[in-house]
Amino acid sequence: MKLYDMPPSANCRRVRIFLAEKGVKIPMENCFDAERLCLTDSYVARYGYRQAPMLELDSGQQIGESTAICRYIEAKFPDPNLFGRTAEEIALIEMWQQRINADGEVGVEEILRNSAPPFADRGLAGTAEPVPQIPALVERGKQRFLRLMKSANERLETSVFVAGERFSMADISLLCALEFGRYVGLTVPEGFPALARWYEIVQARPSTKN
Amino acid sequence: MKLYDMPPSANCRRVRIFLAEKGVKIPMENCFDAERLCLTDSYVARYGYRQAPMLELDSGQQIGESTAICRYIEAKFPDPNLFGRTAEEIALIEMWQQRINADGEVGVEEILRNSAPPFADRGLAGTAEPVPQIPALVERGKQRFLRLMKSANERLETSVFVAGERFSMADISLLCALEFGRYVGLTVPEGFPALARWYEIVQARPSTKN
Repeated sequence: MKLYDMPPSANCRRVRIFLAEKGVKIPMENCFDAERLCLTDSYVARYGYRQAPMLELDSGQQIGESTAICRYIEAKFPDPNLFGRTAEEIALIEMWQQRINADGEVGVEEILRNSAPPFADRGLAGTAEPVPQIPALVERGKQRFLRLMKSANERLETSVFVAGERFSMADISLLCALEFGRYVGLTVPEGFPALARWYEIVQARPSTKN
Repeated sequence: MKLYDMPPSANCRRVRIFLAEKGVKIPMENCFDAERLCLTDSYVARYGYRQAPMLELDSGQQIGESTAICRYIEAKFPDPNLFGRTAEEIALIEMWQQRINADGEVGVEEILRNSAPPFADRGLAGTAEPVPQIPALVERGKQRFLRLMKSANERLETSVFVAGERFSMADISLLCALEFGRYVGLTVPEGFPALARWYEIVQARPSTKN
């Protein structure tokens, strides 16, 4: 199999960290055109969905969406477990995944795509036709990001990691969403000590150098 | 345990159909204030995250997010399997879940919340502070919905169900997103015969009467 990777993408980074936590290596190909700040033409010709990352199996089956790729890897390499073991743990990881995606990852992406000049007419990822930017999404994206920081901080006041007492996929997702914020000038806001404590622990993990 | 349910919500409907497919019954409480078109005050006081559905376990642990609730039920009641068995099946279901959520569920919700008068100052779900509507999201939401219909139709040209040869969570999600579109005047567009064929099969399942 081969993993198509776009280095600056937060979703791609989630997969790279996930693989490092598993200790698994997969052949990777860079599909980012750094000059035009978009996917390479050869990748777009290969994968019509116009998003990265994408895992191509030896059968030719293409798996898109970072979480889907991570679930594939989890099923093939179960240890260490990152998506939960008990029903409650599985559910809490998924709950936080959803929240982190909606307000963190998507919140930041909306700010970036609807304000940065290189994304003019590319207000939405993955579409060939022009999509005009919507500047009002910048303010809303900031609201979403802050809402996530608040709820994560509240959660981390009583829990070592996002979904419970051990490191999981939800921590990888929160870290990537949080650091994705740097692209648009967002960092861990002041006054969230539990989040800051968690951030220090998680960013010290060797996997996050990916 | 108890499931808090908001009848008109597409996310709540996903859980109701999921339970019916499993043949599982859980005590349910309606948390929708039909007069004000929002969550009841007692529910908001109980669950600070201001979204439905929510599953409250006997321990008091609250599980939000429809997919997280469904994964909890899947872990407790494994048959029939709806989230996949093999690595590839698990990954394909998750991949379609992500796409259906991003462009179907969220696409429709963005149209509804950013145009319908009852949602003035409630442009984003789950927030206590006022969030102004962004009318430009109506057009973008339509683009997203159509993009999903196109890719689902293409997929269903070569696959009986969304994620493969058998019915899965991804079919439940696509059905609910598609029918959620009715709230904003969207239906299965003309010229997508594979999608129409799938729709006929899936809406005939007794579970979808929920």
